[in-house]
Amino acid sequence: MKLTKLLLISGLVFQTSVSFAQQDDEQTIKSIYDTELSNGASYQNLHDLCKDIGARISGSPALDEAIVWGKNVLGSLALDTVYLQEVNVPHWFRSKKEKGFYYSDKGRIDLDISALGGSVSTGINAATLSANIVEVQSIEELATLGENNIKGKIVFFNRPMDPKLIDTFSAYGGCVDQRYAGASEASKYGAVASITRSMTLAHDHFAHTGSMSYKDGIEKIPAVAISTASADKLSRDCKNDPSIKVSIKLGCRTLNDKISHNVIGEIKGSEHPEKIITIGGHLDSWDLGEGAHDDGAGCVQAIEVLRLFKKLNIKPKYTIRAVLFTNEENGNRGGHGYADAALKNNETHFVALESDRGGFTPRGFSFDAGADRIKAAQQWKSLLEPYGLHVFEKGYGGVDIGPLKKVNENICLIGFVPDSQRYFDYHHSAADVFESVNQRELELGAASMASLIYLIDKYWE
Amino acid sequence: MKLTKLLLISGLVFQTSVSFAQQDDEQTIKSIYDTELSNGASYQNLHDLCKDIGARISGSPALDEAIVWGKNVLGSLALDTVYLQEVNVPHWFRSKKEKGFYYSDKGRIDLDISALGGSVSTGINAATLSANIVEVQSIEELATLGENNIKGKIVFFNRPMDPKLIDTFSAYGGCVDQRYAGASEASKYGAVASITRSMTLAHDHFAHTGSMSYKDGIEKIPAVAISTASADKLSRDCKNDPSIKVSIKLGCRTLNDKISHNVIGEIKGSEHPEKIITIGGHLDSWDLGEGAHDDGAGCVQAIEVLRLFKKLNIKPKYTIRAVLFTNEENGNRGGHGYADAALKNNETHFVALESDRGGFTPRGFSFDAGADRIKAAQQWKSLLEPYGLHVFEKGYGGVDIGPLKKVNENICLIGFVPDSQRYFDYHHSAADVFESVNQRELELGAASMASLIYLIDKYWE
Repeated sequence: MKLTKLLLISGLVFQTSVSFAQQDDEQTIKSIYDTELSNGASYQNLHDLCKDIGARISGSPALDEAIVWGKNVLGSLALDTVYLQEVNVPHWFRSKKEKGFYYSDKGRIDLDISALGGSVSTGINAATLSANIVEVQSIEELATLGENNIKGKIVFFNRPMDPKLIDTFSAYGGCVDQRYAGASEASKYGAVASITRSMTLAHDHFAHTGSMSYKDGIEKIPAVAISTASADKLSRDCKNDPSIKVSIKLGCRTLNDKISHNVIGEIKGSEHPEKIITIGGHLDSWDLGEGAHDDGAGCVQAIEVLRLFKKLNIKPKYTIRAVLFTNEENGNRGGHGYADAALKNNETHFVALESDRGGFTPRGFSFDAGADRIKAAQQWKSLLEPYGLHVFEKGYGGVDIGPLKKVNENICLIGFVPDSQRYFDYHHSAADVFESVNQRELELGAASMASLIYLIDKYWE
Repeated sequence: MKLTKLLLISGLVFQTSVSFAQQDDEQTIKSIYDTELSNGASYQNLHDLCKDIGARISGSPALDEAIVWGKNVLGSLALDTVYLQEVNVPHWFRSKKEKGFYYSDKGRIDLDISALGGSVSTGINAATLSANIVEVQSIEELATLGENNIKGKIVFFNRPMDPKLIDTFSAYGGCVDQRYAGASEASKYGAVASITRSMTLAHDHFAHTGSMSYKDGIEKIPAVAISTASADKLSRDCKNDPSIKVSIKLGCRTLNDKISHNVIGEIKGSEHPEKIITIGGHLDSWDLGEGAHDDGAGCVQAIEVLRLFKKLNIKPKYTIRAVLFTNEENGNRGGHGYADAALKNNETHFVALESDRGGFTPRGFSFDAGADRIKAAQQWKSLLEPYGLHVFEKGYGGVDIGPLKKVNENICLIGFVPDSQRYFDYHHSAADVFESVNQRELELGAASMASLIYLIDKYWE
């Protein structure tokens, strides 16, 4: 009887405290969303980054400007520390306007092309390279065709992203080998250049660039992306007339590495300042568009988490760091530099959250972590579902935070998951501009990230 | 022992059959999404409706064209029946380009305005009406100000939508009284016109029109919407200089009702042809933009449900009807006409689904129905969540299907719920054009609707 009573009472006490905590959390999360949606700074910050600076590829003066901008913005938030972390980054750039064209019986047809990041040029002063086309659907198909059919030609990788996959990142993952490895694989069979269908589900005139890599010991050949509209036209025309010769002019070059910086701002933890939660996006972008969704959005959202904590006087137990990583796009040197410095400084990293899937309406989070962490996060579903967050599942963290596994193999890496449907309409193309970002969608993302970090800081050990 | 064994066996049998059904449903739903995402017709249909016809307000020749278009598209699907249903609709239109302006010390300032649907003109040949401004935040504030402060002036309703509300429709609902009833309420105190801040969360130059209504016995005064950018400027300038007189020129008119039609296509039920499931959107739009999200999207999605059923050879037990309603925007005559005809023909209606919240990425469905229906739909969550559908809750059905309650007070009315964040950026404005709709988001909506209807047809009685 006594025991039952005790249990009853303790049950009651427990229930009450849970209920108080729940109410408290509900209120804090509401205040985070209210503040961001009525008085957020993320959209204006994104405007400034995109419109005052714009595209900012590694090695460019624009990226240097963006680093100063990031330091100034973080510096205005009355954080405990704001500093730069030196990182060496690659320096590839386009020196000339690119051209791609061919002649059909209707006259000259211009192609929407863009050199892939890392590509060699077509020769001194962007000399014209002209050759016949051989279209393939995959790298594997090259072996079937063999040197006889490929030597001296331009290999045209034309496998589209699979529209049937609901998650567009899966469709991207199923295609991107053509862009990343296609040139060297084609070069093995004597190809003189590679053209890759843009990684997008849209049918339009934007060429989408992105990283590619040459294999050691294989001759480096020029590599371009082509818009989906141009790809479909080229494919049709070459089927009708296999004698068509496509001409390409690329003036891109790789120079020596340059010094760049990760930009870091932090709020020191009140109880465990030695334990670090990292929130990040990457400050570099490709050199087309303005790097709005990729990844200006992630940067301003990471900044915003700290701004909201300060504004709402949320004092975290652990140290919360916003990191604007340099050089995600063509090297991941920022991510590795951050992890290497953490190793060197004996830092303790237990959670990292990255936003690098665009500034779209939030769906939730994916966890590269043990089952216990994922289960614990799922407990918060009822708190976060009113804000449209329903995805709390095992999955990918992010490119920039990935190297933190060198520091702690059990670290919980979290990827912010916005809706993926429109992402590849913009990704790595001239369409990725400020105007393609919706203010509310961006702000909801920032508030979602701040709410999750608030809960993690409060409840996790 | 015997009983236990029996239970075990029956349990096993039950489990197997559930599992077979689940697999079967998974496969059918996957085939619906696969077909729509790789070979959908909804986006091309929306293109044709928006670009070949465009805006189509009730009474306009464009709406007549859209009705012919709808009948032709449904007619191409080899349905069991396609027909028109006559409905009388109001005929209000703009006869002249509208103007709103004032003079400040910086010269003439032009305002982005649009007459509200149903407004009277400013006089013969769009005469200029000029008056001082009195700004209010609500209809209630008028009583506080009284006739002394209002008579002879233009009342400027400037309460914005609340950005803190996550569901933008709630924010709209909290403001729209200013647009709908503001003119007559202001007229009671002697106002000569009303200006209402556009119902949008965006800060831009689009004026958003929408329906308004005059109260009997109150003098009808001209009523306009003003863009949020113009509203903010006007508010600031009038605070600095209360003597500012705003001039408005409106040439809009209401003529006699015109004959219009609901467009209906149906697949007859194989077992219960007498029981009807209605799927609808509305074909009319406001006269700005192209009625893309509102509600071209809903129309092409409703058509697409039937197309997918036919294409995949899904033979429904019940009769499935796609209805393209006329005159939702300024009268709901299409919805009432459809329900009245159903009453007259003794039709049995047990479910109706409407898509009229834009062609955005799907979130789920809201049910204006009994708890048993909602609980039953929630059982399908595991089937539909892989497609991003996570909302299955009590809520609103739709304007067009609402009158079906006259036919069956226990009808299950369902509203398709896409993400709401961007909807009011476009709603009732010149920004609501085809280009604002993303193909995949539109298609996912169509597939979501088809999947829900497939399950309802299979499992509900």
